[in-house]
Amino acid sequence: MNTDPLGRFHCVIPAGGVGTRLWPLSRAAAPKFLHDLTGSGTTLIRATYDRLAPLVGDRVMVVTGQAHRLAVLGQLPELDDHNLVLESEPKDSAAAIGLAAAILHRRDPETIMGSFAADQVIGPVDVFQQAVREAVCTAATGKIVTIGIRPTVASTAFGYIRRGERLDVPGAPSATHVVEFVEKPDEEVARGYVENGDYFWNAGMFVAPVSLMLAHLERNEPELHAGIVEIAEAWDTAGRDETMDRVWPGLPKIAIDYAVAEPAAAVGDVAMIPGLFTWDDVGDFAAIGRLNPASENSRMTVLGEGARVYSDRASGVVVSDTKRVIALIGIEDVVIVDTPDALLVTTKEHAQSVKEAVAALKASGDVDVL
Amino acid sequence: MNTDPLGRFHCVIPAGGVGTRLWPLSRAAAPKFLHDLTGSGTTLIRATYDRLAPLVGDRVMVVTGQAHRLAVLGQLPELDDHNLVLESEPKDSAAAIGLAAAILHRRDPETIMGSFAADQVIGPVDVFQQAVREAVCTAATGKIVTIGIRPTVASTAFGYIRRGERLDVPGAPSATHVVEFVEKPDEEVARGYVENGDYFWNAGMFVAPVSLMLAHLERNEPELHAGIVEIAEAWDTAGRDETMDRVWPGLPKIAIDYAVAEPAAAVGDVAMIPGLFTWDDVGDFAAIGRLNPASENSRMTVLGEGARVYSDRASGVVVSDTKRVIALIGIEDVVIVDTPDALLVTTKEHAQSVKEAVAALKASGDVDVL
Repeated sequence: MNTDPLGRFHCVIPAGGVGTRLWPLSRAAAPKFLHDLTGSGTTLIRATYDRLAPLVGDRVMVVTGQAHRLAVLGQLPELDDHNLVLESEPKDSAAAIGLAAAILHRRDPETIMGSFAADQVIGPVDVFQQAVREAVCTAATGKIVTIGIRPTVASTAFGYIRRGERLDVPGAPSATHVVEFVEKPDEEVARGYVENGDYFWNAGMFVAPVSLMLAHLERNEPELHAGIVEIAEAWDTAGRDETMDRVWPGLPKIAIDYAVAEPAAAVGDVAMIPGLFTWDDVGDFAAIGRLNPASENSRMTVLGEGARVYSDRASGVVVSDTKRVIALIGIEDVVIVDTPDALLVTTKEHAQSVKEAVAALKASGDVDVL
Repeated sequence: MNTDPLGRFHCVIPAGGVGTRLWPLSRAAAPKFLHDLTGSGTTLIRATYDRLAPLVGDRVMVVTGQAHRLAVLGQLPELDDHNLVLESEPKDSAAAIGLAAAILHRRDPETIMGSFAADQVIGPVDVFQQAVREAVCTAATGKIVTIGIRPTVASTAFGYIRRGERLDVPGAPSATHVVEFVEKPDEEVARGYVENGDYFWNAGMFVAPVSLMLAHLERNEPELHAGIVEIAEAWDTAGRDETMDRVWPGLPKIAIDYAVAEPAAAVGDVAMIPGLFTWDDVGDFAAIGRLNPASENSRMTVLGEGARVYSDRASGVVVSDTKRVIALIGIEDVVIVDTPDALLVTTKEHAQSVKEAVAALKASGDVDVL
């Protein structure tokens, strides 16, 4: 056993989720994590990898859909085939993260894993990395550790983590117990959480010994656990594809929060490190404006290589995935997303409603553009 | 000489003007008159021809740019080559209408001509035609006759015609003298004009004996007159192209209003017939909303074959020249014009400012989309 917990730390990057509220930029064939949404010149998945690599080197596993294999390898050419888990169909986060845990456990049962979604924007990187280091040290004491984000607004879009008493972990001075996970609140409740100071956003970041993850999964979702263990046993053998194809489609669909995090918190197995970095899940196009520092001195945020935008008394966000000239006149807080086969025009205020538009297009049979 | 003035009546359709405020739909390569802007299934130039044909049969001449030859013939296949005047470069309305007058005069000096722009929307057609008939009867008494449009709002976008005493012309009970033409007024002055009742919009419709048009042109613009007469003499001969190419580029650029109408009014040679039909010059995209009856019961006017528009809490005008899906969410009175190489997003209120956008694009070198 490696006595430095960081030496047995592996990262898992679940790269799922279409990012419906970012349609038509993000869509089934080109989901959110494959885009550069911050004007940094880097896709979100590549930025996620680069943020973790200083901690784990090449000990990174990615879980994504089969359709995204080439795109992911294009972004992460250093990724080994054995560390790319391809889902034939989406099975929610418990199956994705659970299978990664089972594969890592089979390779080394002492492994500590960290799961970090592929489509989040985080900075400064060193503050994030320090939080992860604390989380790893805390996980080594036998905890499932979540990194909670200090809320900046009374958001109703996230679940919250209620932290408890301080833990006393060497190398993790800010570690605390977690009392409970709470569902997305209404606005009044959210305001109370922010004032209280003990509530943090649940960003879905988990660091834990793989053995502990699997133990909770076995207790709460025995069928799911049996399936992923069967796949994991075949993973580094010639039987990988056959087993995956046979077992995966039958796995139950459940979120890791329900399958592991909440029941584990109930028995006192969950700890938290406060994440004091800035964090954004780029939930909608209004976020694009916030996240593009280039736009600080301009009323118009423009994303897209070779975008040709003319604006007159206009403000907002333009995402251009074409080389068309876009002329905007006399329109405030607009959101325009221009792609070869679909155009979205809305406002920052209505950015959340893009989800319903996608649902309506789906219902009306316009699936070619989804 | 044909004693029925309608028997010697010929129509001229000047088809010039890009319609800059309708960019990017209307542009140098596909100007306004080549579009169906009313959802009627008919381009503006074809509708203009069809409105005049019952009065003149095939006695129609079109003046347009060389670049539009094929497009115009595509719209008006019945047009004879001898009645299609192609400008190698735009020379404003006095040269265009003057040359038509000179050609018609050379063929028959007793001809009465009527000039009607190719890009106006008019209805009901029988009311228009009755006004033209009155104008022709009045012209036959030796007048340049304009058809003035009764103003419906205090517009500052048009020049006005001030009518004078009633004339006593058989077959033209509503004919009056014209006291003067006045330039585009400011809003207060325009309100006064509308209340007064004797002011009409100048829609640029002129009906006149070609001999009288040419006499005024000779007096006011002798150089221009000499040039168009020289071209007209060669027009129906083998020397047409050579003469046109040699003489046209040197002609002075001046509007027919300054070269003929205003000076003719000053000497009492201009009469007016009030046009009691509805009239719209489709000056900007706000007009598209007004002119499409299909939209009466909808908050969204959609123009374009095969347009795929999804709208949620949105209103305005969409002109689609692509097959893209267009999703609009939470945006009122929007104007969206979607073409393969350029996209315009503005509001009805700012529809007039499209002109400045085009000027800015020109200045910045984005001429490929103009």
